[in-house]
Amino acid sequence: MHRDDIRGALRDIPLENVQINSEFWSKYMDLAIDRVIPYQWDALNDNLADTEPSCAIKNLRIAAGLEEGEFYGMVFQDSDIAKWLEAVAYSLIVRPDETLEKLADSVIDLLEKAQLADGYLNTYYIVKEPGKRWTNLWECHELYCAGHLIEAAVAYNKATGKSKFLEIMSRFADHIDSVFGPEQGKLKGYPGHQEIELALVKLYRATGESRYLRLASFFIDERGKDPYYFDIEYEKRGGKNHWGDRHPSGSRDYNQYHRPVRDQKKAVGHAVRAVYMYTAMADIAAETKDEQLLEVCRKLWNNIVTKQMYITGGIGSTRHGEAFTFDYDLPNETVYQETCASIGLIFFANRMLAIEKNSMYADVIEQALYNSVLSGMALDGESFFYVNPMEVWPEASEKNPDRSHIKSVRQKWYSCACCPPNIARLLTSLGSYIYSSSHDAIYIHQYIGGEAKFNINGADITLMQETQYPWDGTIKVKVKGADENRFSLCLRRPAWSRQVELYINGEESSVGSRIKDGYIYVDRTWNDGDTVEMRLHMTPELMHANPESRHNAGKAVIQMGPLVFCLEEFDNCKNLPQISIPHNTKLQAVYDNSLLGGGMIVKCQGYRTNEDSWGKELYRPIQVDEKSFCIKAIPYFMWGNREKGEMLVWIRQKR
Amino acid sequence: MHRDDIRGALRDIPLENVQINSEFWSKYMDLAIDRVIPYQWDALNDNLADTEPSCAIKNLRIAAGLEEGEFYGMVFQDSDIAKWLEAVAYSLIVRPDETLEKLADSVIDLLEKAQLADGYLNTYYIVKEPGKRWTNLWECHELYCAGHLIEAAVAYNKATGKSKFLEIMSRFADHIDSVFGPEQGKLKGYPGHQEIELALVKLYRATGESRYLRLASFFIDERGKDPYYFDIEYEKRGGKNHWGDRHPSGSRDYNQYHRPVRDQKKAVGHAVRAVYMYTAMADIAAETKDEQLLEVCRKLWNNIVTKQMYITGGIGSTRHGEAFTFDYDLPNETVYQETCASIGLIFFANRMLAIEKNSMYADVIEQALYNSVLSGMALDGESFFYVNPMEVWPEASEKNPDRSHIKSVRQKWYSCACCPPNIARLLTSLGSYIYSSSHDAIYIHQYIGGEAKFNINGADITLMQETQYPWDGTIKVKVKGADENRFSLCLRRPAWSRQVELYINGEESSVGSRIKDGYIYVDRTWNDGDTVEMRLHMTPELMHANPESRHNAGKAVIQMGPLVFCLEEFDNCKNLPQISIPHNTKLQAVYDNSLLGGGMIVKCQGYRTNEDSWGKELYRPIQVDEKSFCIKAIPYFMWGNREKGEMLVWIRQKR
Repeated sequence: MHRDDIRGALRDIPLENVQINSEFWSKYMDLAIDRVIPYQWDALNDNLADTEPSCAIKNLRIAAGLEEGEFYGMVFQDSDIAKWLEAVAYSLIVRPDETLEKLADSVIDLLEKAQLADGYLNTYYIVKEPGKRWTNLWECHELYCAGHLIEAAVAYNKATGKSKFLEIMSRFADHIDSVFGPEQGKLKGYPGHQEIELALVKLYRATGESRYLRLASFFIDERGKDPYYFDIEYEKRGGKNHWGDRHPSGSRDYNQYHRPVRDQKKAVGHAVRAVYMYTAMADIAAETKDEQLLEVCRKLWNNIVTKQMYITGGIGSTRHGEAFTFDYDLPNETVYQETCASIGLIFFANRMLAIEKNSMYADVIEQALYNSVLSGMALDGESFFYVNPMEVWPEASEKNPDRSHIKSVRQKWYSCACCPPNIARLLTSLGSYIYSSSHDAIYIHQYIGGEAKFNINGADITLMQETQYPWDGTIKVKVKGADENRFSLCLRRPAWSRQVELYINGEESSVGSRIKDGYIYVDRTWNDGDTVEMRLHMTPELMHANPESRHNAGKAVIQMGPLVFCLEEFDNCKNLPQISIPHNTKLQAVYDNSLLGGGMIVKCQGYRTNEDSWGKELYRPIQVDEKSFCIKAIPYFMWGNREKGEMLVWIRQKR
Repeated sequence: MHRDDIRGALRDIPLENVQINSEFWSKYMDLAIDRVIPYQWDALNDNLADTEPSCAIKNLRIAAGLEEGEFYGMVFQDSDIAKWLEAVAYSLIVRPDETLEKLADSVIDLLEKAQLADGYLNTYYIVKEPGKRWTNLWECHELYCAGHLIEAAVAYNKATGKSKFLEIMSRFADHIDSVFGPEQGKLKGYPGHQEIELALVKLYRATGESRYLRLASFFIDERGKDPYYFDIEYEKRGGKNHWGDRHPSGSRDYNQYHRPVRDQKKAVGHAVRAVYMYTAMADIAAETKDEQLLEVCRKLWNNIVTKQMYITGGIGSTRHGEAFTFDYDLPNETVYQETCASIGLIFFANRMLAIEKNSMYADVIEQALYNSVLSGMALDGESFFYVNPMEVWPEASEKNPDRSHIKSVRQKWYSCACCPPNIARLLTSLGSYIYSSSHDAIYIHQYIGGEAKFNINGADITLMQETQYPWDGTIKVKVKGADENRFSLCLRRPAWSRQVELYINGEESSVGSRIKDGYIYVDRTWNDGDTVEMRLHMTPELMHANPESRHNAGKAVIQMGPLVFCLEEFDNCKNLPQISIPHNTKLQAVYDNSLLGGGMIVKCQGYRTNEDSWGKELYRPIQVDEKSFCIKAIPYFMWGNREKGEMLVWIRQKR
């Protein structure tokens, strides 16, 4: 399908056209395929020993009439099946697996059997509350689950070419379209947890059916109108809730319906809901050439990345509502920074990038990917963080309830299992975040080794990318299959890059004039075997935060390339806050093979309080007493993979 | 009554023997008498316009059969009446007032009418749940309310010589003694909120009835035995709770019954409950010469003051359960530090001081009094803090739920009105914290101008104290009425004092050899008109926190004499965390008449981040850019009396 979006938007490269061959990333993709997907399958089938049963598959079998029993689990239990199917779909593209495909087919058969004659499909309402469907959009995740199933169906269709799942979900989407919409007699509702909007755009793109795009737009534009749908629905239900007994009006920000979407200027409320919605808004703006909606997306984007984003690319400043708070409020002790929110931010960035060809979007994808997303999973792929801490004092996590959400050790699995499958689907679809193209250009957004196929003005071009990123800043690109083809090869110059050199077929070429919106445009006539080499000077440096972010006053972060570094007790003894780092210290980066399978370590000379001079007194007159100390920092994403202990990202700066 | 307590404990001076004449304190006592007591009377009678009704008096009238209606308010509503009566009692000693006394008498008449024939007295159970008394000690505050009423009755008896109230409460205490105790058939319970234990010791001291002391000891020693009384009671109730539906076993720490009291080594749980209990334990240890129990008190004391106390003398590191957390966990952003807890700590310190003659107890009384207690009330006596913040960012209090308990402005009144009346009773009884005596010594614990009468070995001695404390460290004491009487006059040398001079009848005398356990012992034969002058050099200094308290790493506090200082936005512009203070800066203290009726200001040269050099970027490479800045600090207790704005106690230190 070819469309002309806003200002000639970029095309995604089909996942099957991208082959990743990266020492760094292949390992993660293998973990997702070999560990997370099978583990999640066991979870869905209640085959995990010390974990609360999921019953997701059981619920589906009951709904399909194949088993007797009662619905068990959360009202959004179906979404776990959906995320698993979506991850499976991407994994089948990356690495075909007949057995796995058969397994997925069997689940799709169950979905088909469970689907009602009118297209409706949701195990909670089919099994537990028949007749109550669409009565509690505010709390009950029906449209959310539908959205995830639609995403999975689209992915599965792309992966296998099979149409059954897509047809099931199209029927459900048709049903939803018959229930919701601007027409008289239809419900003027919208989801309590946004997700279906972006899924409907995907379904539109996969099927060409414009009703799905219109329905997505309807959900966006209806949202936040006064009188509020959730209030009306609440009254209709007689004030009965699924969770607790609050009135919806108390927390409109939480679900981003506090005002019409087009009037929203700041990111508020539940971070995952927010970025899923912004993602759909960008999609819709692109598809409908809606400049006004795009401008809203830009405002929200700017608000997040210039005022509400942790340096690790994470979002969510409070556990209460897993939410944004307000501009420059980035507390480190009580951070939330949910893994899923970072992933959602990547979705949003990815959609904006498709529209705007500006490296700032790809920069944030990189920032989140290499830091707050990867931190969400242990290096062995077997345990996960929901909350990604910025500093850890294990005793405080255990004994101070204000910090009980900050876990010092990753958990095996959760009863609300959103983050692990979200990581799985992101890693298995990583290939779609690396490149995009227009009719006369190929963009390289992410530096991940491998091969990708493009069609540029009818010519089949293959790019081979070779790099040791993120450990090294040299990226070699070889163009294959070109024959006097003119196009631009556009390489993102990362925001962290202070110095860069460019070599075209081995000859140095100036960069300055080639830069546009953060990309180095190499515009020339290409032939088979041509090479471009970009050398990003990658040295560790200290970063500061905007002084408006009060929590980081007088503190600095070690960063090298895309990686944020942190201190762990393991390398620096306990009581990390007593360490200080001189602004002009010499940071030395060394790749260490013995660090958890290999990784960069940054060392430098710093100081720490001389604790020996203290007795039992809690306070005493000032007495400067510090000793020299060798600071050792490791990449943030690697933390928490050795012994339980303290961790610290923002280090006190000594001036 | 004369008793020989553990190692010749000190005697309290009757409140009526102490007359306060202090520019600093008289103002506060007047506020308590002229503002808080009448305001609270209006509250108890539902005569406040924009405040939730209290119905405390109404409940009492209903219980007394004088009015029809239903019980309204909290299960502990009676305690508000008790605290009011207690404050009234002290105020009648400080400043007799016939009208107020009549008003109090009328309330006491109501109490008499409400009291049941068997002595029972609690409006909630009489009016709302007759027949259910003593079924939920864990949650329902029956013994707590009884305790406050007993305290009030003892105070009222001392103030007026009238015995009616004391008799009412003795009857109730007798009834309680018939219900609880080690004897067969009696309940083996103890209060969910400790308070009656310390009250029973007061009642014992007032009446000489040793059963009350035994009952207090029983409550202490029964507490925390396994099987747990609250579990048994919960089962008996059929698992029904007054609040929520948790099982008591989930939060034993909260009420300090997680283990037998004598096995407790660290302060845990709800801070007010804890210090009220420790107060009673010290009282009982003194009365029963129980060295083992005293040792437990010492351990708990040490744990608090060397590991869990804010520099302002406040306690409580989390809002969750208004509780202690663990050693060295003193977060500034999420502090609780309830005013009532500081007051309870003063009670505990006061009892330990009576036993141990060690200045550390009086030091903590001073520290809490001049900082976290006074901070609890506005300078006009009309609004109050429950939570005493260590740093305030008003927008964070409003928009980040993790900090919603940190109010940036004092509140008029609360539905749970514990702190204002607690301040009132402390201020009106301030006279009892200044001195104590033994058979051959007079101790001056607090430096508060006025006059006090003592009987030392049969001789009537009057001390006249003159000082501008806390603004100035000179204290002049004149001895009146002595005639060749030998005794020690013992002046506390405060922990903050670095240099001190002593003048006896105008002649300098060395201090060194006179010091014992923090007191300067002036042991001599005294005659009428003898004077002692102590000059404590009072200069501002910077204080550090023990490095184990991670939240204060690299930070310093300005302190001068007993006063902790803080920065306010009003004097220092917004974004206080960007200010840093050099360790060797010259601190200059100036008394400023224009500061809120007069107060000390500390100024010094510091730095602040040059915010002008920042654009919209959230993070950027380090770039040291600071400008010189004149820091202006005011006493912590005065904060929040001008415009709403930021406040900061711990200042980043620049080295």
